[in-house]
Amino acid sequence: MKDVRILEIRQSVFADNDRQAEALRAELREKGVFLLNLMSSPGAGKTTTLMRTIEALGEAFRIGVMEADIDSDVDARTIAQSGAKVIQLHTGGMCHLDAAMTRQGLEGLETGDVELAILENVGNLVCPAEFDTGASRNAMILSVPEGDDKPLKYPLMFSVCDVVLINKIDVLPYFDFDLEKCREYIRMRNPDARVIPICAKTGEGIDAWADWLRAEIRSWRGSMQ
Amino acid sequence: MKDVRILEIRQSVFADNDRQAEALRAELREKGVFLLNLMSSPGAGKTTTLMRTIEALGEAFRIGVMEADIDSDVDARTIAQSGAKVIQLHTGGMCHLDAAMTRQGLEGLETGDVELAILENVGNLVCPAEFDTGASRNAMILSVPEGDDKPLKYPLMFSVCDVVLINKIDVLPYFDFDLEKCREYIRMRNPDARVIPICAKTGEGIDAWADWLRAEIRSWRGSMQ
Repeated sequence: MKDVRILEIRQSVFADNDRQAEALRAELREKGVFLLNLMSSPGAGKTTTLMRTIEALGEAFRIGVMEADIDSDVDARTIAQSGAKVIQLHTGGMCHLDAAMTRQGLEGLETGDVELAILENVGNLVCPAEFDTGASRNAMILSVPEGDDKPLKYPLMFSVCDVVLINKIDVLPYFDFDLEKCREYIRMRNPDARVIPICAKTGEGIDAWADWLRAEIRSWRGSMQ
Repeated sequence: MKDVRILEIRQSVFADNDRQAEALRAELREKGVFLLNLMSSPGAGKTTTLMRTIEALGEAFRIGVMEADIDSDVDARTIAQSGAKVIQLHTGGMCHLDAAMTRQGLEGLETGDVELAILENVGNLVCPAEFDTGASRNAMILSVPEGDDKPLKYPLMFSVCDVVLINKIDVLPYFDFDLEKCREYIRMRNPDARVIPICAKTGEGIDAWADWLRAEIRSWRGSMQ
């Protein structure tokens, strides 16, 4: 497999992350870079979903991916196979990315002509939700094997996301996961979140997700004028 | 379902967690309370594994369980059905428990005659690994749907655990999970960790886990004299 670039992220020194995030968001808007922050538990399927997303939208948008992990570069190597621009970010043990760290990642990625930048955040349902990365939209993946009660236990994560992808629906028959109950729990936390069931492995539901993301990018671009 | 006690955990004020943890460990040793710290990603099966553990060891030891969660009391309600002593700890958004927070939990549980106290830590593969809770032993669960590469991505968690339970082995046929490769990755991080494949849902492998835990409690008691 070909080598991927690895960037060691430095811990930020800024106390006011919200201000840093707003500044980064304004800057990205100016540059026309739509930043998607993708979050989930470890192993929920972020990388496989990204591969499908690149497949579905790679012709419509120039895509760049930042793979954040505490260690290893397995995810960036996978994404590199798609042909998309990719960089591996190592957080040095840190459990999340804030706006200043995301900025370092974007500089490392060298966005240039990138139209859709995707940050695969550290696998963690707690800490990443607390830090605005400066993203245009927040997305999360909840996978069927994790259970339908997760919106009850990790409320903030579900509150901050614009869209919740429910992944691994191919294994619904083997788990006690009630999709309707889960939708209801998500609604309790966040009535505005779009919920899209998918199976990144087989491609089921990826069209609906790609349609949602395409529409969001268009509406974001429209609101710039 | 019957009501469970809920304790709101206060953030600790101690800078030196390691010293707090050593002090708590010494105190628990004096009292004869073996404290097991159980960690995993969200939805890996901590609560179901605990139900099986209480089933297997509830006659040999008086068990008390602390269920730590950011919100909700669904896990404590489940454990309460087993008849074991239980308390729900709410971390108020915090992503882990440190030794001082664990001490608050133990005081809330009122250990009294408890011989085996189990802390179900917040579902998170990153932060809980960084804080010694004062536990006698650390255990973690990795579930098959999360993938066999997790020891590469979350090295610290695998390094600090005495035992790794690989849960949900009933769904191995539906996932690309290589058990031998996973054992090898765990060995890279932690050559001393015991690895036990289980299925908490069906009970498979629970005997081996209960045997391990029983032996650890006995050896801990032996080393007291």
